[in-house]
Amino acid sequence: MILGNAMLATMTGAAPYGLIPGGAVAVGDGRILWVGPQRDIPDELRTGEEVDLGGRLVTPALIDCHTHLVHGGNRAREFEMRLEGASYEEIARAGGGIRSTVAATRAAGEEALFATALPRVDALIAEGVSVIEIKSGYGLDRDTELAMLRVARRIGRARPVRVRTSFLGAHAIPAEYDGRADAYIDEVCLPALRAAHAQGLVDAVDGFCETIAFSTDQIRRVFEAARELGLPVKLHAEQLSHQGGAALAAEYGALSADHLEHATEDDTARMAWAGTVAVLLPGAFYTLRETRLPPIDAFRARGVPMALATDLNPGSSPMNSLLLAMNMGCTLFRLTPAEALAGVTCHAARALGLEDTGRIAPGLRADLAVWDAEHPAELSYRIGVNPLHARFFGGAK
Amino acid sequence: MILGNAMLATMTGAAPYGLIPGGAVAVGDGRILWVGPQRDIPDELRTGEEVDLGGRLVTPALIDCHTHLVHGGNRAREFEMRLEGASYEEIARAGGGIRSTVAATRAAGEEALFATALPRVDALIAEGVSVIEIKSGYGLDRDTELAMLRVARRIGRARPVRVRTSFLGAHAIPAEYDGRADAYIDEVCLPALRAAHAQGLVDAVDGFCETIAFSTDQIRRVFEAARELGLPVKLHAEQLSHQGGAALAAEYGALSADHLEHATEDDTARMAWAGTVAVLLPGAFYTLRETRLPPIDAFRARGVPMALATDLNPGSSPMNSLLLAMNMGCTLFRLTPAEALAGVTCHAARALGLEDTGRIAPGLRADLAVWDAEHPAELSYRIGVNPLHARFFGGAK
Ligand SMILES: [Zn+2]
Ligand SMILES: [Zn+2]
Repeated sequence: MILGNAMLATMTGAAPYGLIPGGAVAVGDGRILWVGPQRDIPDELRTGEEVDLGGRLVTPALIDCHTHLVHGGNRAREFEMRLEGASYEEIARAGGGIRSTVAATRAAGEEALFATALPRVDALIAEGVSVIEIKSGYGLDRDTELAMLRVARRIGRARPVRVRTSFLGAHAIPAEYDGRADAYIDEVCLPALRAAHAQGLVDAVDGFCETIAFSTDQIRRVFEAARELGLPVKLHAEQLSHQGGAALAAEYGALSADHLEHATEDDTARMAWAGTVAVLLPGAFYTLRETRLPPIDAFRARGVPMALATDLNPGSSPMNSLLLAMNMGCTLFRLTPAEALAGVTCHAARALGLEDTGRIAPGLRADLAVWDAEHPAELSYRIGVNPLHARFFGGAK
Repeated sequence: MILGNAMLATMTGAAPYGLIPGGAVAVGDGRILWVGPQRDIPDELRTGEEVDLGGRLVTPALIDCHTHLVHGGNRAREFEMRLEGASYEEIARAGGGIRSTVAATRAAGEEALFATALPRVDALIAEGVSVIEIKSGYGLDRDTELAMLRVARRIGRARPVRVRTSFLGAHAIPAEYDGRADAYIDEVCLPALRAAHAQGLVDAVDGFCETIAFSTDQIRRVFEAARELGLPVKLHAEQLSHQGGAALAAEYGALSADHLEHATEDDTARMAWAGTVAVLLPGAFYTLRETRLPPIDAFRARGVPMALATDLNPGSSPMNSLLLAMNMGCTLFRLTPAEALAGVTCHAARALGLEDTGRIAPGLRADLAVWDAEHPAELSYRIGVNPLHARFFGGAK
């Protein structure tokens, strides 16, 4: 099959977007066979169907590299109470906060977790998404952590989308371990990680390094266990304060460090050296009304790849749109539209350790998004509208 | 027809949302016949179809009371240039700013204006919107202003949605009248208004009172012409600076004053006295990265109704989602979810002078939205996802 008469944003080469106006992509066996100007299509490829895209924009299919989309319940009432002026104590007394999501997730059961996650997945697929990272971390007990990961795997079988799982047992300290974070790591987190890994449920290991969650010493123990298991790591780091998580992530050669509003110049240097991707999450920045920006200029100067993701979760980022994350990346973080598109394609792939997707190049998977747009900047410019025309997943529409 | 087993947010009465759990709505001849608890449905209404909504939330259909959705071109390249560090001079030299939209709108032709507006309208309808206000104001010559309003009227015939038009000849000063704003008002704006009114194209008269647009004296002349024609007025007021527009709007008993970031305490008193609705436009606040909030507490204290709208336009608010405007109203302006829902239903109706819609009450139009949600706060809480289950427009699905 040839997709022709397209404005290709290949995300390859040195120029922004790697644009090829009047371009064509040849697809076969689920892979990209050839990419170039329409007039240069080799004759031997002109055998099958040729689709005229009418000048439409074609990008790599999008990749949401940081979500918590498997979870029970919602926190709409907490959102409302806060806007009605309730204090954090009142919200906590009313059962709010992450512990309410943990309780709802534990109570939901695997079927309900799956059923409520599917519409979230479908909304992302409708935006041209082909890969979704999904974290555990609302179970905080062995059985529910494993159930969340099984649901994530099942989503990848139920829908035409690739799911990459991250084990996030070190997300929060459950009520039954209040004040005993180390015991939680020993007795729940590490055994659950090993069990999940033994069942093939874990693609990467994640943690939340923050005063309200886990210290660098505690995360280090989780990372050591990941290393023993041969699993790559990533980390929620420097979101609300500087705790040393980004440096720790770099020390362990993490795929990514995520959030990073409080990362320092030194952190950016360590991440550059380690090849760790900076995953920026403007949805949480927006929802929490943060004012401190991640060190974007330093990431640029040092060549740290910046990815963008939804952080889709029921508390700090109830955002189910990767296109909206692109606009927020531009509007709030002052990324360029070219950086925003790289953030949800090639750099997001790298944040997940995937080398076979995220660009339009021969040999890669034919994961493509066709847009009712003429130029890739339009994807970041408009908000609250979905210009997807068609999505190809492994070459299939 | 009876819509039963619903969580009704009637937007009537004193309690937030006017909630009726386990409620039912009887509909006939396009109107709401009866509203109340399911168990109280009068026997004489139990004649036709009964739809079990499974506990779903039902609200009045939504109303977007401030849009510029008929326009030519887009400003994605300008958005990109600014993020790449271009100065305003460079953007102006590259043909950016509102004048680029005026040029594109003049060049587009009526068919293209209609064709490009329809997907924007359809995206709003897909969110449960039943009434859309559409402004002229990118023609700035008589023929194109009239063409924009004809396109707006045609949208109301082509789609199951009510369109309310606002003549916005006093939107900006076109290049050919540079430095001659008064001459523009005399020679173009007022004659175009009279011609548009004579052709039945005008439901209200709007203006932009700002240093970069028109003075209160100039707007006053437009409002005088509107008064002669018996047309209600509204005004873009106090968005970027305080110019006296809100007081002028109140003096003329305007339906609404819109934006209002720089409105004073005194302005809120005058608006309360005049019954002028405050239309808040957080999409523009977000896109322009403003920091000064409208005087929300004063509006609350004085009982000034607050509406919320998209301001959908290609420059300062390329936002095609009223649900996103609700979330931004909460997140950025600290409205409560109940205020946000009132802002896109009953108060939006009032900003358009409509008394037959915006609430769920006997006698009103059966314009209803059914949501995959349990509580109305969910509509403001989530972003970038559309939980609409069904829309009824004049009783028809
Ligand atoms: Zn996260
Ligand atoms: Zn406007």
